[in-house]
Amino acid sequence: MTALSPAIDRKTRDSFARQALMTTFGATIADLAPGACTLSAPILPIARQQHGVGHAGLTFALGDTAAGYAALTLMAEEAEVMTVEMKINLLAPAQGDRLIAEGRVIRPGRRISVVTAEVFAEAAGDRALVAILQGTMVPVTARSRT
Amino acid sequence: MTALSPAIDRKTRDSFARQALMTTFGATIADLAPGACTLSAPILPIARQQHGVGHAGLTFALGDTAAGYAALTLMAEEAEVMTVEMKINLLAPAQGDRLIAEGRVIRPGRRISVVTAEVFAEAAGDRALVAILQGTMVPVTARSRT
Amino acid sequence: MTALSPAIDRKTRDSFARQALMTTFGATIADLAPGACTLSAPILPIARQQHGVGHAGLTFALGDTAAGYAALTLMAEEAEVMTVEMKINLLAPAQGDRLIAEGRVIRPGRRISVVTAEVFAEAAGDRALVAILQGTMVPVTARSRT
Amino acid sequence: MTALSPAIDRKTRDSFARQALMTTFGATIADLAPGACTLSAPILPIARQQHGVGHAGLTFALGDTAAGYAALTLMAEEAEVMTVEMKINLLAPAQGDRLIAEGRVIRPGRRISVVTAEVFAEAAGDRALVAILQGTMVPVTARSRT
Repeated sequence: MTALSPAIDRKTRDSFARQALMTTFGATIADLAPGACTLSAPILPIARQQHGVGHAGLTFALGDTAAGYAALTLMAEEAEVMTVEMKINLLAPAQGDRLIAEGRVIRPGRRISVVTAEVFAEAAGDRALVAILQGTMVPVTARSRT
Repeated sequence: MTALSPAIDRKTRDSFARQALMTTFGATIADLAPGACTLSAPILPIARQQHGVGHAGLTFALGDTAAGYAALTLMAEEAEVMTVEMKINLLAPAQGDRLIAEGRVIRPGRRISVVTAEVFAEAAGDRALVAILQGTMVPVTARSRT
Repeated sequence: MTALSPAIDRKTRDSFARQALMTTFGATIADLAPGACTLSAPILPIARQQHGVGHAGLTFALGDTAAGYAALTLMAEEAEVMTVEMKINLLAPAQGDRLIAEGRVIRPGRRISVVTAEVFAEAAGDRALVAILQGTMVPVTARSRT
Repeated sequence: MTALSPAIDRKTRDSFARQALMTTFGATIADLAPGACTLSAPILPIARQQHGVGHAGLTFALGDTAAGYAALTLMAEEAEVMTVEMKINLLAPAQGDRLIAEGRVIRPGRRISVVTAEVFAEAAGDRALVAILQGTMVPVTARSRT
């Protein structure tokens, strides 16, 4: 696999750094490659549901964001990325030390990119798949966004 | 439409109150009726994406939660609710003063409930549909959760 | 609601008439209006599953097609329509005399249209909701298709 | 991987043989293993859309059925399988000699099984991914079906 160009790498990390919700969740980019993005985040008390495990909204936000930035790595340099739609199946409670979201591009496209993500919960070295996502991303430019 | 029983009303509001993520987002229950739940939340700076509008994770979390509590109002008194899967289509940027998420049960069931939600952005009295969701909820009991 | 222009009406019906699968299923256009399309089809023996009711593939095909032609009515005259993605929740067995699929555009767009459909089973005058669909359609032209 | 028990193998193939829609489409089981099912079908003229390629309803039906029978291989011997919901993303036109649908269980469950499928189009030895599916299956028994 070819490495990510420095310009795309920088653009993607800059965009991620401006996502306040990711900062709120304590999420960081663990890995970034052409067509792939892995995020890591603790399961903070502020992001839990009524039984003390991670809220589906947390799991979704991480999976969706990992998938979106995976798509962005394959888009034109001036583009930003936007979620058109996303489907999540929740497989197990989001409990443990951290969530790891691995986004991947299944089919890049000029108009439409199809993406998936897997979200894992890590606890004491164990790793359990807690959710899978499948969705659609589109490139947006400053012009198309207004 | 029959009114919600006091016991179910109380159980649902108590469960919502324990969802730390909803507190983080400043969300409140605006309306609760059999098979329907409306949530209201500001678009806080902490929940935004890179362009300053609400993150898809915020919109999802509100829509999913409204749909889940709509389902819970029709479940047995000892049950809690869990999202099996949820699909979201994002229609417009989540910008404005508040998001309003209206969850609704399409078909309640003993094993499986099918739900939808619409999320609106309100700004200066205007109201724009920003997302639609369609998904599946299941009842869980203390026993089935462990 | 404004009426459908004769040109769009004709284009949509011509396109439907060329869908061999719809002919195979005995489906016809029951209603066509701007942003809306209703299909009607018998539950033919050739389209059933192992328990003698309509196959999920039949229900999906009717719902997806109704939603697609609903979207086509709002697209440019030279455009054809293509499904990007579609989610179906199946609520009840597809049994009875006919299936009725009502497609509707939730948000038309130059690049992307968001659509929904409801599929009903009719038997002896009764009508039961058997599926709901939510998805994304895009316009394609002769050029973008190749 | 352990082999499929003869009883489950027979039950699954018998169920498939009773799906009239699969017979209509000329589909056959190409491979069956615990948690996995591959179907193969020609792109018959009767199953095409307006541009002469396979209808989304064909692609969906094959993917959904492959995923469903993958789930059935892991269910109790008296159970049948039913689709609760399914999401499909269409990546490329379904054109060529045959469609191959590979269904797989991501997480089996007593109440709910999460499944995926990939559908490929084969033409002159080439193989292109044309769709991915992600959904939920449940076991049904003669009793729960009535």
